[in-house]
Amino acid sequence: MRIGLITGGGDCAGLNAAIRSVVKHAVGAYGHSVIGFRNGWKGVAEGDIVPLTRQHIRGVLPLGGTLLGTARYHPHEANGLDAVQTTLEAERIDALICIGGDGTLHAASKVAERGINVIGIPKTIDNDVAGTDASIGFHTAVHVATEAIDRLHTTAESHNRVMVVEVMGRHAGWIAVNAGIAGGAELVLAPESPFDMDKVESFLRHRHRAHASFSIVVVAEGAAPKAGTSMQFEVELGRYGEIVAGTTGGRVASEIASRTGFDTRVTVLGHIQRGGTPLPADRILGSRFGHAAVEALKTGRSDVMTALRGERVELVPLAEVAGQVKYVPADLLAVVDALA
Amino acid sequence: MRIGLITGGGDCAGLNAAIRSVVKHAVGAYGHSVIGFRNGWKGVAEGDIVPLTRQHIRGVLPLGGTLLGTARYHPHEANGLDAVQTTLEAERIDALICIGGDGTLHAASKVAERGINVIGIPKTIDNDVAGTDASIGFHTAVHVATEAIDRLHTTAESHNRVMVVEVMGRHAGWIAVNAGIAGGAELVLAPESPFDMDKVESFLRHRHRAHASFSIVVVAEGAAPKAGTSMQFEVELGRYGEIVAGTTGGRVASEIASRTGFDTRVTVLGHIQRGGTPLPADRILGSRFGHAAVEALKTGRSDVMTALRGERVELVPLAEVAGQVKYVPADLLAVVDALA
Amino acid sequence: MRIGLITGGGDCAGLNAAIRSVVKHAVGAYGHSVIGFRNGWKGVAEGDIVPLTRQHIRGVLPLGGTLLGTARYHPHEANGLDAVQTTLEAERIDALICIGGDGTLHAASKVAERGINVIGIPKTIDNDVAGTDASIGFHTAVHVATEAIDRLHTTAESHNRVMVVEVMGRHAGWIAVNAGIAGGAELVLAPESPFDMDKVESFLRHRHRAHASFSIVVVAEGAAPKAGTSMQFEVELGRYGEIVAGTTGGRVASEIASRTGFDTRVTVLGHIQRGGTPLPADRILGSRFGHAAVEALKTGRSDVMTALRGERVELVPLAEVAGQVKYVPADLLAVVDALA
Amino acid sequence: MRIGLITGGGDCAGLNAAIRSVVKHAVGAYGHSVIGFRNGWKGVAEGDIVPLTRQHIRGVLPLGGTLLGTARYHPHEANGLDAVQTTLEAERIDALICIGGDGTLHAASKVAERGINVIGIPKTIDNDVAGTDASIGFHTAVHVATEAIDRLHTTAESHNRVMVVEVMGRHAGWIAVNAGIAGGAELVLAPESPFDMDKVESFLRHRHRAHASFSIVVVAEGAAPKAGTSMQFEVELGRYGEIVAGTTGGRVASEIASRTGFDTRVTVLGHIQRGGTPLPADRILGSRFGHAAVEALKTGRSDVMTALRGERVELVPLAEVAGQVKYVPADLLAVVDALA
Repeated sequence: MRIGLITGGGDCAGLNAAIRSVVKHAVGAYGHSVIGFRNGWKGVAEGDIVPLTRQHIRGVLPLGGTLLGTARYHPHEANGLDAVQTTLEAERIDALICIGGDGTLHAASKVAERGINVIGIPKTIDNDVAGTDASIGFHTAVHVATEAIDRLHTTAESHNRVMVVEVMGRHAGWIAVNAGIAGGAELVLAPESPFDMDKVESFLRHRHRAHASFSIVVVAEGAAPKAGTSMQFEVELGRYGEIVAGTTGGRVASEIASRTGFDTRVTVLGHIQRGGTPLPADRILGSRFGHAAVEALKTGRSDVMTALRGERVELVPLAEVAGQVKYVPADLLAVVDALA
Repeated sequence: MRIGLITGGGDCAGLNAAIRSVVKHAVGAYGHSVIGFRNGWKGVAEGDIVPLTRQHIRGVLPLGGTLLGTARYHPHEANGLDAVQTTLEAERIDALICIGGDGTLHAASKVAERGINVIGIPKTIDNDVAGTDASIGFHTAVHVATEAIDRLHTTAESHNRVMVVEVMGRHAGWIAVNAGIAGGAELVLAPESPFDMDKVESFLRHRHRAHASFSIVVVAEGAAPKAGTSMQFEVELGRYGEIVAGTTGGRVASEIASRTGFDTRVTVLGHIQRGGTPLPADRILGSRFGHAAVEALKTGRSDVMTALRGERVELVPLAEVAGQVKYVPADLLAVVDALA
Repeated sequence: MRIGLITGGGDCAGLNAAIRSVVKHAVGAYGHSVIGFRNGWKGVAEGDIVPLTRQHIRGVLPLGGTLLGTARYHPHEANGLDAVQTTLEAERIDALICIGGDGTLHAASKVAERGINVIGIPKTIDNDVAGTDASIGFHTAVHVATEAIDRLHTTAESHNRVMVVEVMGRHAGWIAVNAGIAGGAELVLAPESPFDMDKVESFLRHRHRAHASFSIVVVAEGAAPKAGTSMQFEVELGRYGEIVAGTTGGRVASEIASRTGFDTRVTVLGHIQRGGTPLPADRILGSRFGHAAVEALKTGRSDVMTALRGERVELVPLAEVAGQVKYVPADLLAVVDALA
Repeated sequence: MRIGLITGGGDCAGLNAAIRSVVKHAVGAYGHSVIGFRNGWKGVAEGDIVPLTRQHIRGVLPLGGTLLGTARYHPHEANGLDAVQTTLEAERIDALICIGGDGTLHAASKVAERGINVIGIPKTIDNDVAGTDASIGFHTAVHVATEAIDRLHTTAESHNRVMVVEVMGRHAGWIAVNAGIAGGAELVLAPESPFDMDKVESFLRHRHRAHASFSIVVVAEGAAPKAGTSMQFEVELGRYGEIVAGTTGGRVASEIASRTGFDTRVTVLGHIQRGGTPLPADRILGSRFGHAAVEALKTGRSDVMTALRGERVELVPLAEVAGQVKYVPADLLAVVDALA
């Protein structure tokens, strides 16, 4: 069997573990060939291939990023499906394993509609792919964010400051909630719970009056104010010198500084959440998903995604998960509130 | 309500997160009092108490160990149940939250038999408590072990050596299997699969002839040779100077060195797997379990243990889990074999 | 002897090691009393004291920040010298140990002019205090910045991007140069070498044409274009959505994106460089400096600063170092250029 | 110019940074060729070469170990000098850069005696090479040891134990002293100060009676009892089940357990001190030394070693440093004693 392999969308930690696992298991157990395509669906559309052997995957387990490269290109939105199909036929690909987030997996289901065998492997630091307890890259992102919060804690306390930290999470607040709990944040603003700036202000005022002289506020980039509440961004850009403009965290910090007069700083973590040495959890998840994807092909499955369900890896139909967003459940949000 | 709180058994990372969560939620949400006992069941038997307030839990989230202290003392094995009951009555404890491994939780069910409200929270770096996907401390232990394997990898490769790493796991090989996958070990010896030294030898000989000049072998302390297979420890102690005698890893390394003549070294990780800054996963698990234990008491539950099941925290009867060992399932062992 | 102790200026990693060392050695070896003042010179001016005993310094070695708190307040610029003197006399302080950067140490020499015994201990993540090979906090800051660059490397490579990283360093580029070498950056922009954007552009164009498809550019916040060279910031704010406006790194990234069309991102590390668990080097430096400061008082020295010179800790007159900036020397800048 | 390059002796963190720097600077600035030999002097004697280009050094900066391999082989002790000379002439090597510890550098001076241009670069986690403030690998080893001590601290405190940690250091106690200070150890046993077990016992008894219920004791592998003092190892092997026999740390732990009855455990860190991702300090030192070695050849120097002196890299004659051991100076040992 000739198996095609791509990584698509934003990079994250653990992709190389999945690539390594697919190659090791497919070649070692079944003698399959594995053909990688560079830069996600773009490489499939353009026929940019790299045959993958044991040689290519030596030493990649502790490395971040993806040795195949990646790109944010979706063939079904770019009239690329014909080119994809042409390449797959020209390369005599029997099945394609697609490691990616919602966009890549959605494209996978479109490709599957053309009769091509496709297995999806979910990855996204945002952890918002439906149908699986976790996606590759999430645990490392939480770790990086928590380490940053730990570092900011001592600064906040030493200087009696409000430290606002913006973490990734456009649609769901998984990183914000988990890193917020792990880092002992006083306040977590997530997309799941639109915030009321008046309440943020009164919470911080009360805390700084009664308990402590510093606070950590974690803000997901996709957090937004509750409809009808006031968030005026009254301060001019630059007035609070170190506040970063144009970001959710920066706006929240401006508002807090403006309303309370507290010494307030913002840190936007950005891309450091994506890369670097993967945590064991992401290496293991990548390894298990890669193994399961090869097994799925062996048993004739297609159009499914590997998924973590409790302690087991299962297969779920791509159709069930494509286009869905997995939100942080109410009971986890309750833990955040209880520990604030 | 007056809630008693203990940590028992070996210490691990994430205990303070659980203590903090119990105190914050019980005091903050319901106005309960929380009475800690020092050094596990021993402190209950001896009436060694420390009332816990918000002041005690400041800054403990990133700290390893347990601020309450711990001990390996089981009242039901030491005629201590009467003393335990006397203390709990004298201190007017309405319910007891017990954070511990199998021994502590077993004692908890014995105490519950006397009509005392008890909630268990599972912790063990070995991850072998039944009924829950994960116990507090496990993820950090896997992380420490994986970091060590990463470090040994470069030494093994630079010196063309076999490096044997002994990790914890008396009854089950969770750390060995997970750190072995994450660290890219060539061979993992776990209690679940008794090993055959002849096969270990021929595997290593084949690998060193065909592929590579180094190997990493991860050994759980509870790993044992298959019945009827040969493991002779023929070498005298000290002949291989740096080999640590009297440990499972040391014996395996002696045997490999003696049989193959390969330059072989052993590292026994030991106690560093227990302590230090908890990984976010253990801080979060501790926080969630602490919150859930307080909620369980609020709703009148007793004689149950908090358990992670997929993405949710649930309650399972202590009776169902006491005395059970959770083994590494076959599908995870299969991933280890596939990636060797 | 009654020793006063303050930490002033921005916080950093290793301050608690110095505090601990002063207390342990002064109390343990000589039976002195140590009186801490909260929030730097501000606390001296306001008489905000906290007597320090062995109890206060338990467990602080691995903690970032400063248990005394700190503030950017300089008594000689705020008519505070009289208040400082009044407090020191009221508290019968025989000598004052001042842990701080250039501002705090400059104030120390002003206080010394009034006949008060003063010993300085240099700390600054910027490493620009003159007279000493290293200041407390620098090594940890380089570590944090290097870790971030490591993480960004894999992202840059996976996505074929230019990643711009802004690190601290207003007057001198120590963090930028050291983290740039350690992280393998392609380009380092430091205050010591004003940059020419035309050369930056041609360097990146050449590299991306000839060698590689990604680059890491490390920018000290105090880096500036060479006089007479062009840096136009032609792009409107917001056009490159993820580029952070109003920062040196953001301006450089805008310029690169605008000139080359390369996919460019910026990360401003900010406050995470200050805090968190200190690296051994900063704990050791803090411990040695604290010890040396107490010894200096014992031998009757005043108006001096502890300084690392090679492997030894020496004392240098405050007058020699106050107001001086220690720049990155030419031979170290040459290493950066050679390895680009 | 054709430059030969080897890494010899035990591996450590930062070797790849030095290799990379030699190749980048020699090829990039001067158009030299760099010929690597595998496995140290052994590869030179056997003519086992690998020409090194920019391609070979991509991505190696954050990797531990040495891409050239290494071995403990000394040509002057193995009648290998003729073979070394033959290979160097056959490969038309104009000069040899030798990265190694005392043994490798001693061999280098023997090779230089035959009229071959040789530059040494010091590396050893033990930090005992004379003439330089630091050798490649030392800072990372201290970091690994300190992290381990941090982890053991929380366990010791939770269980009221004496934890003995054995670190590397046969002739000098640099790792023990530095990690002991950084980790806040109560006692450090280094080769520089032979210990008296009676004093160790009374120190621990006093501490556990007066202050605390736990202790951390750091032991260099080369630490030894003072002549004439008693150290009886009265306990039979195996009596204290978890105590590792046959190591310095194990013997000290046995003795402490036997004398005091305190719950005592030992951890032998071993090879994890050598490997893994190098700390920035070792990457920078390797980069600077590699650069300086190439510069030294350019200016016609030979038979010298690169050395860190304060903030500068200088050249010192190999003859001055070969066979010397750099011991921990008295003032640093005094800091350890003061902070115990």
